[in-house]
Amino acid sequence: MLTFDRGTGAFDQFVIEETTFDAQAEGGYEAIFCQGNGYLGQRAALEERYAGQTRNLFVTGTFDRFHESEVTELPNLPDLTNLRLSVNGMPFSMEQGDLVSCTRRLNLKTGELTRYVQWKPPQGKPLTLCFRRFVSMAREHLLGFQVEITCAGEDCAITVESGIDGTVTNSGTQHLYEREKRLFGGRILFMEEETVQSGIRCNLYAAHSYQVDGHETATRRLPVMRRRYLGETVSMTVRKGQTLRIEKLCCVTTSRDLLTLDGEAALREAIGMGYEGLLCESAAAWAALWAAQDIRIDAQNGYDQVAIRFALYHLNIMVKKDDDRVGIGAKGLSGEGYKGHSFWDTEIFLLPYYTFTQPDTAHTLLRYRYRILEGARRKARDHGYRGAMYPWESAWIDDGEVTPLLGGADIVTGESTPILTGHIEQHITADIAYAVWQYAQATGDSAFMENHGWEMLMETARFWASRATWDERRQAYVICDVIGPDEYKEHVDNNAYTNYMAEFNMRLALKRLDDQDIRHVAEGLWLPVPDENGIIPQFDGYMALQAIDLTRYKQAESVGDIFKDYNLSQINHLQVCKQSDTVLLLLLLEDRFSPEVKRRNYEFYEARTLHDSSLSKATHCVLAQDLGLDDIAYDYFHAACAVDLPIGTPKSPEGIHSAAMGGIWQCVVYGFGNVRLTGGKLRIAPRLPKGWHRLSFRIIWQGQPLAVDADEKGVRVTNLGREAVGVRVYEQETIIPGGQEYAGSGMA
Amino acid sequence: MLTFDRGTGAFDQFVIEETTFDAQAEGGYEAIFCQGNGYLGQRAALEERYAGQTRNLFVTGTFDRFHESEVTELPNLPDLTNLRLSVNGMPFSMEQGDLVSCTRRLNLKTGELTRYVQWKPPQGKPLTLCFRRFVSMAREHLLGFQVEITCAGEDCAITVESGIDGTVTNSGTQHLYEREKRLFGGRILFMEEETVQSGIRCNLYAAHSYQVDGHETATRRLPVMRRRYLGETVSMTVRKGQTLRIEKLCCVTTSRDLLTLDGEAALREAIGMGYEGLLCESAAAWAALWAAQDIRIDAQNGYDQVAIRFALYHLNIMVKKDDDRVGIGAKGLSGEGYKGHSFWDTEIFLLPYYTFTQPDTAHTLLRYRYRILEGARRKARDHGYRGAMYPWESAWIDDGEVTPLLGGADIVTGESTPILTGHIEQHITADIAYAVWQYAQATGDSAFMENHGWEMLMETARFWASRATWDERRQAYVICDVIGPDEYKEHVDNNAYTNYMAEFNMRLALKRLDDQDIRHVAEGLWLPVPDENGIIPQFDGYMALQAIDLTRYKQAESVGDIFKDYNLSQINHLQVCKQSDTVLLLLLLEDRFSPEVKRRNYEFYEARTLHDSSLSKATHCVLAQDLGLDDIAYDYFHAACAVDLPIGTPKSPEGIHSAAMGGIWQCVVYGFGNVRLTGGKLRIAPRLPKGWHRLSFRIIWQGQPLAVDADEKGVRVTNLGREAVGVRVYEQETIIPGGQEYAGSGMA
Repeated sequence: MLTFDRGTGAFDQFVIEETTFDAQAEGGYEAIFCQGNGYLGQRAALEERYAGQTRNLFVTGTFDRFHESEVTELPNLPDLTNLRLSVNGMPFSMEQGDLVSCTRRLNLKTGELTRYVQWKPPQGKPLTLCFRRFVSMAREHLLGFQVEITCAGEDCAITVESGIDGTVTNSGTQHLYEREKRLFGGRILFMEEETVQSGIRCNLYAAHSYQVDGHETATRRLPVMRRRYLGETVSMTVRKGQTLRIEKLCCVTTSRDLLTLDGEAALREAIGMGYEGLLCESAAAWAALWAAQDIRIDAQNGYDQVAIRFALYHLNIMVKKDDDRVGIGAKGLSGEGYKGHSFWDTEIFLLPYYTFTQPDTAHTLLRYRYRILEGARRKARDHGYRGAMYPWESAWIDDGEVTPLLGGADIVTGESTPILTGHIEQHITADIAYAVWQYAQATGDSAFMENHGWEMLMETARFWASRATWDERRQAYVICDVIGPDEYKEHVDNNAYTNYMAEFNMRLALKRLDDQDIRHVAEGLWLPVPDENGIIPQFDGYMALQAIDLTRYKQAESVGDIFKDYNLSQINHLQVCKQSDTVLLLLLLEDRFSPEVKRRNYEFYEARTLHDSSLSKATHCVLAQDLGLDDIAYDYFHAACAVDLPIGTPKSPEGIHSAAMGGIWQCVVYGFGNVRLTGGKLRIAPRLPKGWHRLSFRIIWQGQPLAVDADEKGVRVTNLGREAVGVRVYEQETIIPGGQEYAGSGMA
Repeated sequence: MLTFDRGTGAFDQFVIEETTFDAQAEGGYEAIFCQGNGYLGQRAALEERYAGQTRNLFVTGTFDRFHESEVTELPNLPDLTNLRLSVNGMPFSMEQGDLVSCTRRLNLKTGELTRYVQWKPPQGKPLTLCFRRFVSMAREHLLGFQVEITCAGEDCAITVESGIDGTVTNSGTQHLYEREKRLFGGRILFMEEETVQSGIRCNLYAAHSYQVDGHETATRRLPVMRRRYLGETVSMTVRKGQTLRIEKLCCVTTSRDLLTLDGEAALREAIGMGYEGLLCESAAAWAALWAAQDIRIDAQNGYDQVAIRFALYHLNIMVKKDDDRVGIGAKGLSGEGYKGHSFWDTEIFLLPYYTFTQPDTAHTLLRYRYRILEGARRKARDHGYRGAMYPWESAWIDDGEVTPLLGGADIVTGESTPILTGHIEQHITADIAYAVWQYAQATGDSAFMENHGWEMLMETARFWASRATWDERRQAYVICDVIGPDEYKEHVDNNAYTNYMAEFNMRLALKRLDDQDIRHVAEGLWLPVPDENGIIPQFDGYMALQAIDLTRYKQAESVGDIFKDYNLSQINHLQVCKQSDTVLLLLLLEDRFSPEVKRRNYEFYEARTLHDSSLSKATHCVLAQDLGLDDIAYDYFHAACAVDLPIGTPKSPEGIHSAAMGGIWQCVVYGFGNVRLTGGKLRIAPRLPKGWHRLSFRIIWQGQPLAVDADEKGVRVTNLGREAVGVRVYEQETIIPGGQEYAGSGMA
């Protein structure tokens, strides 16, 4: 059971704590306690072994394809977290002996993960063990681990075995072959492996030190070398009352790194600084991030404050901010799920955060989409279209479409379900165009538009113009046979989301160049309109589908429960949505729909939506807030946070949901902060949930950092930059000069 | 702690029992409780998950090479043993809740492995669980598993998940890619994978049934399909006092099978028979084996009887008796150790058993060596020699030399130790020739000699003739730069074992053809002779090496302890033997050395031998027995048995030692039974250890089965065949007609 808010002083409401231990539930904790810096992602598998652990270490961009039957993915690199202790011959395991207490804390402020254990071996007196680890935010190749064992009750014979373990796989798939393993100077363990297809060399270095009560021990290290493993073992007697401290410092480099680093030299330098020195340096880098980005929520429920910081923490470790050769994986670097691939959620759920708080990172991410434009052109050609058709799933810049072809079991036929998203879930192309435009408007970065943005808008618009077909009966262009964001509906025609976004995409291109083909299709495209009840049909024929009682599935503990009763082709005929689809459209193109249409559609679709996608809840939160459904919005905020940070046990061992982290930010800043970019202008009109006394955050608008400080009565917007910017605060258009603030009231 | 002799009635002294459970020690039990039939090898990993388990399923001959940096090995196929239970939401684990008792029994007579568990969940009333499994000796593609759960104290909500798990690897190396997984008829789980390099398709089928108190349940099966995994899950309530029985029947086929089988049809047929029917059929096949091969030891210490049956059990599951495309792996099919490769131990330690008890199997194994003769010729050519130089390690018939190039860490340099055996451990070529000759003499199989045997003897002899070089100083042919059986000595000249065996090999060839080159070298070859103290130097310069005190290493718990203090090049300069080397020679060519020379060398080398090879102990047992050191011989017999069947905890998680199983047989039949083939004649002269009242076994001599029945006074040899055979019983040469017996006395 997770608890929050146990930090004190400087760490107040920066700490996530877990005080129980259940090996079966560990997967979820491994994911949410993940550490990283955008280059490295280190899952929080415990040092000692338990059944069901997943030890994951990823380096961004190191994609490899095991076999032509599989798609490329981020390989799981050799594990560095392993460290096995035995006390008087008994292996340390929290499942053996008497576990008096176990407290794990992730300190979001410093990035350090600690575990404090009081343990009594089956035969023997109690010990305390303190495990600490971090991934450096200051040196992206570096990881540090420390263990302190205090023998409180008796002398103990302690044996330690620790090393670099290359037996790990991606759920059984092995991407690496061994090149070399050896010791340097009897001290530095070194392993070099290489990916089998992409030929990326991965070098791992680890060095250990052993101190008793602060004094380096003279204990003999014995190397342990076997297949795919290199480690060392030491044995010593620790006297009653003494503390043994083990430090394990590690360095990882690959041949795909942006800059070449001598890993051995880097590790030697790190050894000189020691765990504490390196941690301080990393915490200082984190402090700078928090200074620029922290969101303060003064609320009755302390969870809210921790939850937004939890999201910010992950938003800062999932992306390598300066590397435009890779996107953000759907699980960040926290697990094997989705293989490290990037989807549309980067643009729709994550880009708003980066665009408004780290425009340089947003720039990097959009340049990545520019760099894969050639692959998008190739995909369009392969499908018989013009322009650029973005891959549904993307990996390395020249990989092209990497969506797998087969999914889980069809309960009716017994066969694997084909995955069609790579072929017909096409809205991503418009989503990327949408993000380009949003970035350009928020930043005013005309150089980006000149060098990359307009080309992307034109090429994507050309795709849509060639994609639409003329419908004689309707006397309109139609887009048939797609999947919308709601993936429970395949092969649909005129998905409202897709058509509206495609039209938006084409109209963006027309701002630059009056291309007749594009104009023709843009003006003639069929845009589903509200019916007599004000409902926009999600796609042609949706209203005629069978409605069923979803109560049971909505209440289910796990997502996808409906597949226990129906297969996908059956669900295709039911009024059941995996996630917001039309509702998302109402939010993205908010100016185009009246409040009444929004309300009716929100209510209609909400009743039919299972929220089986982690993306759905934040969208519903923001729209509910827009519609004045404040309590519902607050509930959806908690539901969005609970995707990865539940009050209870985390349920996603395959990794955190990157986009859901962006969704949490959107709930707070777009929803309660009511920050929105409409008609090229910035609107700030906070309305806080009940129980929130204050909300402070920063955004960057036209290059100027704005501090937004809202309470129950209104908002104060301070322009921390030098240039004046125009802002609408509540209903008031205003210009705030650099260094000035503006106060507005939200009272009616 | 293993115990023995708990069987009753028909199973008396056929049962190995283990009544403790320690997850850390499981590896050793997984190996010795391994089940199989020569085609399949199934390690005894428990159904539920524990840290450190190794789930291994091998099919003989399915060799694959993951990458050019590795050598070919037997891939670990998808796991079928997995079956996870939860009781009222709590996963069944013997590490959780209260383990009242756990008794595991391997019944050597029927081949069934059972586990009886009394378990109280953390919250809840006690349950009993009975797990059973077998690998069919009657249908080589079939495995059966059964679990019975009796809810003694309360109604229980039971959930079962079980399937085919393809996430397993060979210590991290993955040889298989997924081709297909699906359900047939909602009932049969099917997974097809293929090896990445050798292109062998592997098909696995599994079907489950669920009965409560004997009635098939109507419980809904939900398929679970994810990467490299296909399973099903069911949930049901089992009432207080009821028993849920789960049967899981599995079938495995591959495209490398000798005969093609329709796995789905085979499994459907098996389902019709059910676990009990299939087990009975398999037990009947085992009964036939035992009827022909059982060795009875009536001894004070019941362990001795169980130990020889344990050896016979493994000797019958490690080899596919009719497939001459594969040899016997150094770990049989019980673990990943040595990658399924065959070494010289097949010929020197295993062939005697097969030659004397299953000549057809011996014939298959020697035909395998004939089929790899072309690879041996290639290896000779590649090294600049003539004739056939057998690979040190062999796998599939056309693989050639498959010895890996690197081993464990050198503690001095920090680098991996090069493995030189593939280049310079050459005695295997003479060992194979020795085994050919032994087989020919024991069986009188002249057809084999005409078709295969003489060619092998000639080609191997040609190799030796080209391998030896002329030493001007000695005026003799010498064999320089080799490794003898004692692998702690590399790059030695005139290793006594190698030279004598090479000469023997050449002289065998000369029996058929008077090749002048061979004769020249055979007659001029340097054969190390006893020095003034009667000691034959193991190789040139051995006597001048430094002697050190080995007490510490001899007493060490684990083998190879000396490497904690010295690296291999240091050990090269010490009088330290890994295993018998010269001593083995004294046994193999026993006619060539006087009892006095044998005694002196035995004593000299025994003091210098660490027995770090599992092969060493049986050799010392037999030679000690020959020398009249009866108590020492008996101790060595126990030491040989304890390699895999210790009184305590088994210590070889990487797999059983195949050759050591042959060594146990040699201790009993060659040693205490004193059966020997000398000068082309069979000698039988038993002398039983103290505490043994009777020893009965069978051998086949010249095609006639002989029953040998010895007690403290003498022996009765019964010719169970039709043809008369000549035998020396103690000092008496005799001819025993078919159907007749001969009694001899061992009294002086």
